[in-house]
Amino acid sequence: MEIFSDEYFMGKALEQAQIAAESGEIPVGAVIVCNKQIIAKSYNQTEMLNDVTAHAEMLAITSAANYLGSKYLHNCELFVTLEPCPMCAGAIFWSQINRLVYGAADDKRGFMNYGKEMLHPKTSIAFGLKHEDCAHIIKDFFQSKR
Amino acid sequence: MEIFSDEYFMGKALEQAQIAAESGEIPVGAVIVCNKQIIAKSYNQTEMLNDVTAHAEMLAITSAANYLGSKYLHNCELFVTLEPCPMCAGAIFWSQINRLVYGAADDKRGFMNYGKEMLHPKTSIAFGLKHEDCAHIIKDFFQSKR
Repeated sequence: MEIFSDEYFMGKALEQAQIAAESGEIPVGAVIVCNKQIIAKSYNQTEMLNDVTAHAEMLAITSAANYLGSKYLHNCELFVTLEPCPMCAGAIFWSQINRLVYGAADDKRGFMNYGKEMLHPKTSIAFGLKHEDCAHIIKDFFQSKR
Repeated sequence: MEIFSDEYFMGKALEQAQIAAESGEIPVGAVIVCNKQIIAKSYNQTEMLNDVTAHAEMLAITSAANYLGSKYLHNCELFVTLEPCPMCAGAIFWSQINRLVYGAADDKRGFMNYGKEMLHPKTSIAFGLKHEDCAHIIKDFFQSKR
């Protein structure tokens, strides 16, 4: 696998999702990349933080802005294992991030139910990368909860 | 003015918006009420925190959940001076809050562009309360910036 490829970064997001699973959180992971360097990584922490806003993408956006000293993430890419929900899509909009790459689709809660116009015109979208791995980790998590 | 009325709580949200204006932030304020008691109050802090996610509603939801020790805000009401954006509407959805009351409409960025289905079925909506005051504080802010 080529280093600094989309596949590489989605693998890093999957590692974050794995940490979430081991922490009893719905396993979604995210990384933000700037100039081929990971500047933020996070996983869903809604249970641990007792906070519905603590999705992986939200924490990563806050962390990346803190790292860059800029609330806008113009030259950055967000890799996330699951299609963002409308809350996260709204945050991605405000960040004006350059690119969003997500793995598995979320037909029930994903922002694409409202159309890609939820994102900023500056943001390009790619999806489906490692989608089987990204979907499996969530499916396995819920099966283990039964 | 009756104490513990909607008007009273929207006035408290307006006080928060005023603090935002004085801090150089786009003046939006919010309070969350549980059993007629304010359990969280906040104002937009995107500039100060250098974070696009730091809208008044987001900070109030996080704060209320922390106060209650529950990520769900089932018996709470959110009063906010401006129609929430899709990010905040998404957070309001996840919180399953009982009621949302907003003041001024936001025709450009408001969640109602996507329909009230963005909110949880458990959440009732009211709007237009003190909408002139809520809109004026924002208009005045942008005029003073020119």
